[in-house]
Amino acid sequence: MKRSVTGIWDIVKYDGDTFFRQEDEIVTEAPLTIEIDGEEFATIVCSPDDLTDMVVGFLAAEGFIRSMEDVNDINIMEDQGFAYIELKRTSSIFKNSYGKRFIGSCCGKSRPFYFYNDLRTAQASKSDTALTAEQCLYLIRQLQEQSAEFQRTGGLHNAGLCSTQELLFTRSDIGRHNALDKIYGHCIRNGVSTADKVIAFSGRISSEVILKVAKIGAGILLSKSAPTDLALQLATELNITAIGFARNGKLNVYTHPQRIFGIDRTDDAEES
Amino acid sequence: MKRSVTGIWDIVKYDGDTFFRQEDEIVTEAPLTIEIDGEEFATIVCSPDDLTDMVVGFLAAEGFIRSMEDVNDINIMEDQGFAYIELKRTSSIFKNSYGKRFIGSCCGKSRPFYFYNDLRTAQASKSDTALTAEQCLYLIRQLQEQSAEFQRTGGLHNAGLCSTQELLFTRSDIGRHNALDKIYGHCIRNGVSTADKVIAFSGRISSEVILKVAKIGAGILLSKSAPTDLALQLATELNITAIGFARNGKLNVYTHPQRIFGIDRTDDAEES
Repeated sequence: MKRSVTGIWDIVKYDGDTFFRQEDEIVTEAPLTIEIDGEEFATIVCSPDDLTDMVVGFLAAEGFIRSMEDVNDINIMEDQGFAYIELKRTSSIFKNSYGKRFIGSCCGKSRPFYFYNDLRTAQASKSDTALTAEQCLYLIRQLQEQSAEFQRTGGLHNAGLCSTQELLFTRSDIGRHNALDKIYGHCIRNGVSTADKVIAFSGRISSEVILKVAKIGAGILLSKSAPTDLALQLATELNITAIGFARNGKLNVYTHPQRIFGIDRTDDAEES
Repeated sequence: MKRSVTGIWDIVKYDGDTFFRQEDEIVTEAPLTIEIDGEEFATIVCSPDDLTDMVVGFLAAEGFIRSMEDVNDINIMEDQGFAYIELKRTSSIFKNSYGKRFIGSCCGKSRPFYFYNDLRTAQASKSDTALTAEQCLYLIRQLQEQSAEFQRTGGLHNAGLCSTQELLFTRSDIGRHNALDKIYGHCIRNGVSTADKVIAFSGRISSEVILKVAKIGAGILLSKSAPTDLALQLATELNITAIGFARNGKLNVYTHPQRIFGIDRTDDAEES
């Protein structure tokens, strides 16, 4: 049985004057426990669609696989909320270091990474894709127009993979990182190139979001929301152009402005 | 050195016509690794303020402590991002079951809990506190008025502990659950009663948020955002009144309407 990403609940509404009962559309939140080679590894709370994409993206982001060649079998039991993964090679070393904090040999503060697996799987972007501010604003508008579910229920994050010209496809989830894993998994399963792409995202730019973008391999992230400082440190380190508050015809370029046409680079030369 | 919850970054802004450089206020995101009795337990990414409250709230929510009596020492090394905890009794059984999925003995679907520690620490609310829709809307407005940081930076979640009459205090964090842990820790450290209180929250009502509210011990949650279905299942089970979309003079009562004055209960009687 495939579960829907939304369901209907009977609730009580107050309109400023009276209470009345009415049906309301509510987003579904479902736990999915991932077992790798017979061992419980992590439980992800997610929207129950595109689960194979999400699991593949998650496994790649955590460094267990690089391509579908590394996977023997993925068996998703949606009703029970379990995903059983069989890998070609067991990588217990990665499993053991999952969630373990990375402590630098010299000064722990020199690099903004804090998890060992992130240090291993998030590589600095080599993308030389560039676009204009108007293209950025167009892509974010396209993402918003495709986010009907969010408008109705107010509960989903949306992520889209874009060329510089066009929004190519979107994925949504109640978890910001899951929406990005679903994008990543789709690219891995279908051999979609990512270095020449832009990622548009509905949510805030946290460190986790920048790490996912780096793992996916894109060089540009667009969001209509705010970033955090750790996200900007990571974006600087990972050569990602982070763009926030892209709305109402305006935007902020936080890091690596070389990928946006029309920005005077004189100051950069002085800085470097 | 105490780190600020925001910092200043030099960024490039686009105003719809030209690019210009300007300083911008960005929220700080800092990893804090929690060591319990010499063993690394979890890394929480958070806003670096009220860290003792947050750690105490987290330990209580995860079932390691019930009061400050269970704590020998808390040593927070903010610069290194470590919190060293020494408990009176070591509870390795809880540590081992942390993050382990709970599988019911009969039908795994009968209860919406999915982590073992949540099943242990989230108790059904016994609160008989009640208020009017107008009081709910007033409390949410108070929370929004106190959220200046969010308005400026767009990056923080806010949670407030309220009596039925008044917002008592607020805590903010880039992580929704952290803001609630900071509330919980403050209550534990200062002996603040919670069963007679209301929690106002700026973010979405996820399962994690309902679990935290149950652990804190409050019976009513107010939010201006949307809930998920798992959150509503948990709220039903844990006897919590979940109120969402509280804005523009309207609100939705999703669960346990008995704590809101003025709702016709005829239908409830038929349902039960």
